[in-house]
Amino acid sequence: MFEPPIQRLIDDLARLPGIGRKSAQRLAFHLLTVEEEDARRLSRSIVEMREQVRPCRRCFNVTDADECVFCRDLRRDPSVVCVVERAQDIVVVERTREFRGRYHVLGGAISPIEGIGPERLRFRELLDRVHGEGITEVIVATNPTVEGDTTALYLAKVLKPEGVKVTRLASGLPVGGDLDYADELTLGRALVGRREM
Amino acid sequence: MFEPPIQRLIDDLARLPGIGRKSAQRLAFHLLTVEEEDARRLSRSIVEMREQVRPCRRCFNVTDADECVFCRDLRRDPSVVCVVERAQDIVVVERTREFRGRYHVLGGAISPIEGIGPERLRFRELLDRVHGEGITEVIVATNPTVEGDTTALYLAKVLKPEGVKVTRLASGLPVGGDLDYADELTLGRALVGRREM
Repeated sequence: MFEPPIQRLIDDLARLPGIGRKSAQRLAFHLLTVEEEDARRLSRSIVEMREQVRPCRRCFNVTDADECVFCRDLRRDPSVVCVVERAQDIVVVERTREFRGRYHVLGGAISPIEGIGPERLRFRELLDRVHGEGITEVIVATNPTVEGDTTALYLAKVLKPEGVKVTRLASGLPVGGDLDYADELTLGRALVGRREM
Repeated sequence: MFEPPIQRLIDDLARLPGIGRKSAQRLAFHLLTVEEEDARRLSRSIVEMREQVRPCRRCFNVTDADECVFCRDLRRDPSVVCVVERAQDIVVVERTREFRGRYHVLGGAISPIEGIGPERLRFRELLDRVHGEGITEVIVATNPTVEGDTTALYLAKVLKPEGVKVTRLASGLPVGGDLDYADELTLGRALVGRREM
């Protein structure tokens, strides 16, 4: 229906997560009508990000330097490390303003179904850090899914013999939520993890 | 929170219509983790579209040639022209498979509030086509909004003295809605049931 240069852009945009065919069309026509420089800047930002961003050599967060902002920050406590599945999970933890340690990005979670075993993730690198950086506590912030739970259990098994305290984010009711809308699994976990008042 | 190359891309993505801050973050991290070539292709598609696409010299649809696909198609009836506000409205009309004429893109609708008078739109060019191309019917497919209705009335006033039959898409389109969101069936019915003005 569209001429090749437009169709190609629509196809490329529709490949992005959460962008359907109709949104891709709207975005393509938007990019066709905005100031030329705005379109070029977006194009350039994509390539420049790919060229400049790489994994932090310590924690595998994304960075444009040797080490990421958190590993470079000397006010951060190096003895506490929060383990996340993906780099984008870090920003969610940061938003709480409750954590002042460092991070470690595993690169995913253990998933037998998808054939992702521990050797595919950065456990070895975490173990090296535990030995070299005086880490005393590892907070496991993997997703509250079967894969995230499996990964957390594996971490506990591997790290406890090293004398490291391994903790996991509490599962339970979302703050401000309604008990009525909680699913059984979440409510079950909230019950198991209940605390004395 | 993010290092400059990532933050810049997030900012540029968040400027797109319908993309919020959170979606922009997701998209940026997606583009960071996909195959490098996929990211580069999207970047290239944006620039290439801007470089290759221009208005059709006859109907002002977007094209990468002198004339657009519909103006070049000799099986199309040149005596019936469908007038739309924007080039992206053409695809919606095409999807109905009810229309086999040509198009004319006005470039917007008359809007006294936004200071858009008839001189800002391509009425002059439409009139030239009426005189030169043997057009006998103009189907007005402007949006069913105050601006679209005003534009339709203006078109009827200008074109009727030229002996051209001016029709407007029938009701069935939700008033105050956007042509872009109409489903094919509704728009198809509106096309079949168009009425002379």
